[in-house]
Amino acid sequence: MSTIERWSVFEISAPGKTEGNPFTDYTVTATFVGNSEKVTVDGFYDGDGVYKARFMPSFDGEYRYTMSGSFGDTVEGSFTVVPPSAGNHGPVRVANQYHFVYEDTTPYYSVGTTCYAWAHQPEETHQKTLAELDKGYFNKMRFCVFPKHYIHNFRNPETFPYVGTPVDNSGLNEETFSMFVTDFSGNDWDFTRFNPEHFRRIERCIVELMERGIEADIIVMHPYDRWGFSAMTPEQDDFYWKYVIARFAAYRNVWWSLANEYDLLFNKKLADWERYARIICEKDPYNHLRGIHQCMAFYDHSRPWITHCSLQRQDLYRHVEYTDDYRTRWGKPIVWDEISYEGNIDMGWGNISGQELVRRFWEAAMRGGYAGHGETFVDSENDILWWSHGGELHGESPARIRFLHEIMTQTPGLGLRRGQGSFDETVGVPDGFPAAGGGYEIHYYGFGRPSFRDFRKPEGEWKVEIIDTWDMTITDAGVHSGKFRVELPGKEYMAVRLVRV
Amino acid sequence: MSTIERWSVFEISAPGKTEGNPFTDYTVTATFVGNSEKVTVDGFYDGDGVYKARFMPSFDGEYRYTMSGSFGDTVEGSFTVVPPSAGNHGPVRVANQYHFVYEDTTPYYSVGTTCYAWAHQPEETHQKTLAELDKGYFNKMRFCVFPKHYIHNFRNPETFPYVGTPVDNSGLNEETFSMFVTDFSGNDWDFTRFNPEHFRRIERCIVELMERGIEADIIVMHPYDRWGFSAMTPEQDDFYWKYVIARFAAYRNVWWSLANEYDLLFNKKLADWERYARIICEKDPYNHLRGIHQCMAFYDHSRPWITHCSLQRQDLYRHVEYTDDYRTRWGKPIVWDEISYEGNIDMGWGNISGQELVRRFWEAAMRGGYAGHGETFVDSENDILWWSHGGELHGESPARIRFLHEIMTQTPGLGLRRGQGSFDETVGVPDGFPAAGGGYEIHYYGFGRPSFRDFRKPEGEWKVEIIDTWDMTITDAGVHSGKFRVELPGKEYMAVRLVRV
Repeated sequence: MSTIERWSVFEISAPGKTEGNPFTDYTVTATFVGNSEKVTVDGFYDGDGVYKARFMPSFDGEYRYTMSGSFGDTVEGSFTVVPPSAGNHGPVRVANQYHFVYEDTTPYYSVGTTCYAWAHQPEETHQKTLAELDKGYFNKMRFCVFPKHYIHNFRNPETFPYVGTPVDNSGLNEETFSMFVTDFSGNDWDFTRFNPEHFRRIERCIVELMERGIEADIIVMHPYDRWGFSAMTPEQDDFYWKYVIARFAAYRNVWWSLANEYDLLFNKKLADWERYARIICEKDPYNHLRGIHQCMAFYDHSRPWITHCSLQRQDLYRHVEYTDDYRTRWGKPIVWDEISYEGNIDMGWGNISGQELVRRFWEAAMRGGYAGHGETFVDSENDILWWSHGGELHGESPARIRFLHEIMTQTPGLGLRRGQGSFDETVGVPDGFPAAGGGYEIHYYGFGRPSFRDFRKPEGEWKVEIIDTWDMTITDAGVHSGKFRVELPGKEYMAVRLVRV
Repeated sequence: MSTIERWSVFEISAPGKTEGNPFTDYTVTATFVGNSEKVTVDGFYDGDGVYKARFMPSFDGEYRYTMSGSFGDTVEGSFTVVPPSAGNHGPVRVANQYHFVYEDTTPYYSVGTTCYAWAHQPEETHQKTLAELDKGYFNKMRFCVFPKHYIHNFRNPETFPYVGTPVDNSGLNEETFSMFVTDFSGNDWDFTRFNPEHFRRIERCIVELMERGIEADIIVMHPYDRWGFSAMTPEQDDFYWKYVIARFAAYRNVWWSLANEYDLLFNKKLADWERYARIICEKDPYNHLRGIHQCMAFYDHSRPWITHCSLQRQDLYRHVEYTDDYRTRWGKPIVWDEISYEGNIDMGWGNISGQELVRRFWEAAMRGGYAGHGETFVDSENDILWWSHGGELHGESPARIRFLHEIMTQTPGLGLRRGQGSFDETVGVPDGFPAAGGGYEIHYYGFGRPSFRDFRKPEGEWKVEIIDTWDMTITDAGVHSGKFRVELPGKEYMAVRLVRV
């Protein structure tokens, strides 16, 4: 009998009928029964006459399973679930209203990145991406299931999600391309037949991320399209959503991003997004995190199915400084999935400095939110930009983001919120950490350059550390009490941490 | 018969009674009659038995004057006004709703600075200030009539505005001082007797600024006080206002700032501010510009007596980016008199970089507003900070501010407003300049670092220049039309200027 560890994938695979269209003509479901749970999931056709069903156990011990339906003969069996190995903490959940934990209660401090189309790149680029991810800069990655049609993205993907033929792309260039294609003629897709190879590419990415402790924030729909995948019928959309969920839901690191910039999918109405959400809530037995990302108009993040607010702002100036406001407005975790990218392309959303990007990460963190990275340096030779393709990183921010994450892991409780401080500083304190239980404060000065700061701590002794968020140093400044002055270097991006001892 | 040039000061001076209190016991007014105007003003007692009245002629030709009242014998005479010499453009007025011109129609692009207490410093510091002002960085200076009690400002001023004795300041330091003093005991002032020497110091400053082409933005009241000057009775306040106006109004470069941070003068009600405004409108025959500056709560800048909006924001992040909104809200010139200072003191309002300060100047200018400079570098030896005392400048921003002013003088019309551009740039275009009359656009990228930008100009030929706002260079990038690309260095603080040829 096979043995797997808790929160890993148990897959049933069996041959079945191939007559007609196996994607549509046959049913396949599977039920998994352990001592503490009974879960029924949809199976799916994986091509070549093979039907599969996947399951993620949440408990240890013996499980029995049955896969049945019109696809073919019923399959039964059993397996044993053992405790997770090191590094497997289970799926990420919302905790303490504004923050995240893994299911084993390990805090999860989101430091994300975005490589929209990395799943659709040639192997050489893919390996370079993995080599960067190995460096541990990030613990969340946003990427798309569908291929992407956008500036720097006119090449065809390695695979397409459907059986058929794509529109000719040979005449496409930055000069003449249309971002919002409405005429999809020239494409010839069978929207009733998936290309399993395409979805296996996505699964490979999910697993590679999982192995590196990185959450897979899967963007299921998006508007950057010349193939018509953003303009399918409701029936085609639902068919796609169910296939995606049946294939991906059993991976513990999956987050569902219903869309990137949902409001640019002009063919969809709010009722469509609500229907997709209903499908996820029905079909995903593991309750993975669910968000929806906008261009201009925020989705109503108070909708009960939304677990966290996936945000960007078009304002190039004030940005993550709204974290406090949006926590108050929606009462959910604030995840800034776009805060402009480190780079030097023409567009304002893609040419801020590493310093400004890291400043936004810190401001978001100190105010009780979480920010996301992206990188857009001009590559006139290969046109490979991390934000889209993955590949190699060139910026200065990733190492500083990893440093911020280390600081966060030293924080009591599950995350920070903006604490009391004077108006000219952002003070992060443990969110929900009992006030009497100890003192922990990070005073962050952003682009301010104080050469000293005065503190008043009438009670207790406080360990003082000076954090250089850019040079990534932590300097012991002694133990103090009462009113005391901390000398600072008069440069940008400094913080002072006070911990009561 | 004496001759003066238009918009300069004609002063009548005559001996008079000295019995009792000459400041309160006698009247003195003067009337000036030329071919095109007749102006009556209050005279004032200048000490030592001397009464004076001052006048600024707005027209050329012969004038006759009479000074009379209970002060003594009536004085009569005449003088000739001749056209202004180079550099004398008259007082500054509001023009084209959001902008300024001198009375001779020369555009005035405000680039201000602040040295609150420079008028109250020893001669050595004063001379250093003048030497900096000689460099032509600024064309407006904000400073206070009353002395200042604040961090870095516990020394007594060189003179006090009233006859009497100040409270002892020997025990004052940054640790123990109270910013909002409510008990003014220890002071002994006769609020009916001014100290003319104090006001002559202010007048010297006004003249020194005038000689350098710098507007004197006189802060008549402010809350940083240990002497009780911020907590006088309404009668004492009005007496002070009338004396100030009688003495200063004839200097063409005077602007009236009713207060710095009016909302921190807790003893004053809105009715008081409105009463002061009424006094100015009644007593100042020259209609000098009038503004009132706040800490937290904006004054209602739609009040008809307010000529321009003197603003700051407590938000450390988004700031002059509100220029467009406030132009719309109040329909008057937007003058950002505080945008945080270049420096390295502890407070967030005083420790931004030169780069960030200059960025704010540019953003304000491109959006049709005007920004102001200040400098607050720690001086542990002498505790002399430009923002308060004047002295020497240490920062990097002044030269860049002067460069911006040069760019502004090359602008058609009277000033800029935010023009049409993509969301990720700030485009300044001539405000009110007829669209058909020619094309002039400055595309400003702030902290963005584009390595190129594309432009589309279906009509006309356009001269293209690349402006490095930090390195202060203007690089010719040729003449283009249609769709064209401008290569940029991928660094911060760049702009592109397009001029139709």
